[in-house]
Amino acid sequence: MSKNVLVLPGDGIGPEIVEQAVRVLDLVNTQFNLGISHESALVGGSAYDETGSPLPEATLTKAKAADAILLGAVGGPKWDGLDMAVRPEKGLLGLRSNLELFANLRPAILYPQLADASSLKPEIVAGLDILIVRELTGGIYFGQPRGIRTLDNGERQGFNTYVYSESEIRRIARSAFEAARQRGKRVCSIDKSNVLEVTVLWKEIMEEVAKEYPDVELTHMLVDNAAMQLVRAPKQFDVMVTGNMFGDILSDAAAMLTGSIGMLPSASLNAEGRGMYEPCHGSAPDIAGQGIANPLATILSVAMMLRYSLDAKEAADAIEAAVSRVLDQGLRTADIASQDCQTVSTQAMGDAVLAAL
Amino acid sequence: MSKNVLVLPGDGIGPEIVEQAVRVLDLVNTQFNLGISHESALVGGSAYDETGSPLPEATLTKAKAADAILLGAVGGPKWDGLDMAVRPEKGLLGLRSNLELFANLRPAILYPQLADASSLKPEIVAGLDILIVRELTGGIYFGQPRGIRTLDNGERQGFNTYVYSESEIRRIARSAFEAARQRGKRVCSIDKSNVLEVTVLWKEIMEEVAKEYPDVELTHMLVDNAAMQLVRAPKQFDVMVTGNMFGDILSDAAAMLTGSIGMLPSASLNAEGRGMYEPCHGSAPDIAGQGIANPLATILSVAMMLRYSLDAKEAADAIEAAVSRVLDQGLRTADIASQDCQTVSTQAMGDAVLAAL
Ligand SMILES: CC(C)[C@H](C(=O)O)[C@@H](O)C(=O)O
Ligand SMILES: CC(C)[C@H](C(=O)O)[C@@H](O)C(=O)O
Repeated sequence: MSKNVLVLPGDGIGPEIVEQAVRVLDLVNTQFNLGISHESALVGGSAYDETGSPLPEATLTKAKAADAILLGAVGGPKWDGLDMAVRPEKGLLGLRSNLELFANLRPAILYPQLADASSLKPEIVAGLDILIVRELTGGIYFGQPRGIRTLDNGERQGFNTYVYSESEIRRIARSAFEAARQRGKRVCSIDKSNVLEVTVLWKEIMEEVAKEYPDVELTHMLVDNAAMQLVRAPKQFDVMVTGNMFGDILSDAAAMLTGSIGMLPSASLNAEGRGMYEPCHGSAPDIAGQGIANPLATILSVAMMLRYSLDAKEAADAIEAAVSRVLDQGLRTADIASQDCQTVSTQAMGDAVLAAL
Repeated sequence: MSKNVLVLPGDGIGPEIVEQAVRVLDLVNTQFNLGISHESALVGGSAYDETGSPLPEATLTKAKAADAILLGAVGGPKWDGLDMAVRPEKGLLGLRSNLELFANLRPAILYPQLADASSLKPEIVAGLDILIVRELTGGIYFGQPRGIRTLDNGERQGFNTYVYSESEIRRIARSAFEAARQRGKRVCSIDKSNVLEVTVLWKEIMEEVAKEYPDVELTHMLVDNAAMQLVRAPKQFDVMVTGNMFGDILSDAAAMLTGSIGMLPSASLNAEGRGMYEPCHGSAPDIAGQGIANPLATILSVAMMLRYSLDAKEAADAIEAAVSRVLDQGLRTADIASQDCQTVSTQAMGDAVLAAL
């Protein structure tokens, strides 16, 4: 049964890191006889430059037909001044919402080989393994009405709407509880229920869904406290579940705790388990084209893709083992460079993973 | 000229820590002949229990008449189940908005004596001195419409509105630039302008106001990146300015970086410089009544109050010097306890500051 992967290199360092990840995909495809084919398409700023749209119709059509999507990264200062409706990130947001990729899984794992890379003290982060489950197709990212209007007194006012319905909360809650069942069996739901009504409903539905999972413990935490606790004692968490905006902020903070955001993959899944896979980090325009970006988060995103969407667990395991071996060998890209290790290029890191496979 | 301070002990550890802070206020009042009088009033959950409202009319009237307000902390699980409109935090939000305390100044400072208390590595946080300027009377905290409605399909939907007008952004921008002028002359404005229209306007007005302050540098950062950078390299910041919700999250994260959130005061000022002063930490209901809470953030809030609202700079300096001396003596409350230091009670910490004055 042949499987089709859509590759979206995107902007900034996207093309460089995706190139290495595709080499890895091609190799395991042959080694494990997976019958995976792939094609590429444009998204983000590069799509805008070429077609006038950050999410061209052709890309969306291919994305809907694909069994899985591998994305590099999108956006950059070059497209910053554009009107909202055409800014490149709309490409990403458009993909997420059109494909209903509502469940964003963002692990924050401290690799033992990279323990020194964290800015936190070793005793605070050693063994860190959190999974952030972020709702990805709702909340204030997509809420209507939105825009900038002129008030009666002549001044302008910007407005966005933070909105969640019961069914949106229920399905992301189930994603979190299901994930927790495979891990430490604890879910911490993050809200701001002392101020925002939408998160009062959020908290209530979390409680309701928790009854379906008596083996999983549910706790609640206010978002400001969660930001503090991530810094103070991050190992207290197993699975954190939250909305789109809080999830954006907290997952980046959590990833950075590990000191190796260049190492962290992510999955964005729809109700059928089809998904888009991408590194947690952004398009890093400041280092684009220099060949120094870390391709490992994208390579590990390929592993997640094989495991969650392409039913190829063995190939996924092989990639993860290869990455671990490369770290054991002391190879590091600049972002995770360390004194006793060898700093290598994007390409050399890709070579090393291929060699380890 | 006599000055009137309204003292609002609030809930949880509020009364305990405020008690020590008032002793300090009384002493400097005598020592420096400041002519300050003070009275107390109810706010928060304790006000709700007694009067049915978290912000009784009598309290609000006194607050409006006062030259400055000293607040402990409000809220706690006891009042969690209450309807939004009467939940205790409404007392706090009501105070902020009725008094138009739009500029919330939250310093995140690493005390050299407490360098070990941070969960970050010493080289990352040594010398940390950030000021977060948070807009406090607008944004999604106060935006209308808000609530929980039932959709046509019968399910409920929670909604809040994130809104800022030009004039609201302009005045908080000026607060940030003014503050930066007294410090490192750098403002970093935090937004999510790649997704939220309201923050596109925010960014634009920041640029406009920056023209009035050619001696201050303005940069912009996306909120998710800001959360990462606070963990990765917090010393890159001087003044950070942001809206109510992002400010809530980032200021708590920043405060926690110092490992001594029990040490950090805050000021909430209106256009005339009148203000409310309170510790950055919350009501900590889990340790309330045990006599172990750290009163220093509240005592330092008294110092901020003397400096910003009561024109008593010398008394403020004296309090800050006394706190520093007490830390030098090795006295620590439980939250900042360390091996070679003596762990003392709330009351004993208050005694020590009085003795050092
Ligand atoms: C690029 C941006 C729109 C996006 C987001 O905010 O979701 C990114 O920060 C992310 O977290 O994937
Ligand atoms: C208690 C709560 C309403 C408040 C806020 O969110 O503003 C608190 O977290 C704070 O930061 O002062």
